[in-house]
Amino acid sequence: MSGRTVTAGVLLIGDELLSGRTQDANLQAIATFLGALGVQVREARAVPDIQEEIVAALNALRGRYDYVLTTGGIGPTHDDITADSVAAAFGVPIAERADALAVMESHYGRALDRPEDDNRRRMARIPDGASLIVNASTGAPGFQIGNVFVMAGVPNIMRAMLEDLPERIEGGAVIRSLTVGAAGLRESDLADGMVRVQDECGVQIGSYPYFTEKSRGVNIVARSTDEAALARAGDALEDLVRAAGGTPERS
Amino acid sequence: MSGRTVTAGVLLIGDELLSGRTQDANLQAIATFLGALGVQVREARAVPDIQEEIVAALNALRGRYDYVLTTGGIGPTHDDITADSVAAAFGVPIAERADALAVMESHYGRALDRPEDDNRRRMARIPDGASLIVNASTGAPGFQIGNVFVMAGVPNIMRAMLEDLPERIEGGAVIRSLTVGAAGLRESDLADGMVRVQDECGVQIGSYPYFTEKSRGVNIVARSTDEAALARAGDALEDLVRAAGGTPERS
Repeated sequence: MSGRTVTAGVLLIGDELLSGRTQDANLQAIATFLGALGVQVREARAVPDIQEEIVAALNALRGRYDYVLTTGGIGPTHDDITADSVAAAFGVPIAERADALAVMESHYGRALDRPEDDNRRRMARIPDGASLIVNASTGAPGFQIGNVFVMAGVPNIMRAMLEDLPERIEGGAVIRSLTVGAAGLRESDLADGMVRVQDECGVQIGSYPYFTEKSRGVNIVARSTDEAALARAGDALEDLVRAAGGTPERS
Repeated sequence: MSGRTVTAGVLLIGDELLSGRTQDANLQAIATFLGALGVQVREARAVPDIQEEIVAALNALRGRYDYVLTTGGIGPTHDDITADSVAAAFGVPIAERADALAVMESHYGRALDRPEDDNRRRMARIPDGASLIVNASTGAPGFQIGNVFVMAGVPNIMRAMLEDLPERIEGGAVIRSLTVGAAGLRESDLADGMVRVQDECGVQIGSYPYFTEKSRGVNIVARSTDEAALARAGDALEDLVRAAGGTPERS
């Protein structure tokens, strides 16, 4: 780990995310995971299962951020075109790889040589030059090529694959955060004070109002790589909430 | 409504989506809402509260899709920079607008002329040429400029704003879908058959495996604008699941 800023883009692949059928849960999991490694997600995109869309988005993101993580489209069916699309984006060939097949055969406990295994073996197709990402959940591996990590879309499989990433990622400064809740207050009661605290403490402050049938309030989030500055900001935000007539809840 | 294909892009704005703090719920709500109007979401992006990022993403999306819907960043605090960014993207001025202020004052039941109202009045800043989007929830309006709809990020406010959109959107063909569940089966058992049904029935088929501690299975989703074709595909998929030894559950 170093103090430099290390960034990532996230590419969510799948028609189901854009049709409304599926609620993505992977972006938040990835952002939280990378944040702890000192990698900041700066952009996310969701694209359909269309090769030219995947290629264009991947090439935009991998040129721009230190790392790119993709989810979705690496299963055995016709709509799983991510591996081929990633190979196309990198301009490298793709074919069934012996190491990937061996991993899968080990997981299944038998040779994948029956006629009905043909589709399953699609999951052993890996772009040239990629290294495998272990999938402790279902066997079929993800892969890393260059600065791109290609993972499954099913959330529990994706999270299992994340466990194989830390040693491949060189993180930078870790951004810490704290939240000061201000139940009953409005953002506009706190707006000027938040800017003042942001400037005086040198931290980044975000303001997140909430509204339910029973209550309303604001959560003020301070973020910084500097823990001392963050602690000062927390104290100042508590004072701000009190001055506005609220009872701060720090977490 | 017509039979043409009408598309949309979604731009989710906010640091909190990329830090892992907040789980986005707006993309799915927007996709479902637009789908019923005959508008297909083709891409979504999440960007931080940085003007140049918002401008670049918005200009990319609004040039490419029939409609763009944005969420987030239109509140009263320093990190709410969406309205200014949208004005910059369109190259138009932005200032407090009398109609927006009137809507807010009506909601608050008083003139917003106290010193502490200065931040609140930031929410009446609207780009030149935009029309207001009603916010029945908290008063402060969203706005439409060109093919872009700018809405709040708080999910219940965003959903309230969606209610003001249908008459402004000319939808095309509505894509219908059906799901055939195949509990206990694997994607690879069904892969060839799905391609055959897709080709024979002229519908689009997606395959979504699930894995829990207790069970596994596949949901096969068929999508089409042609209800008769969809019904035939449903029958064919049920046959496919039965042929693979499963019990189809159609929904």
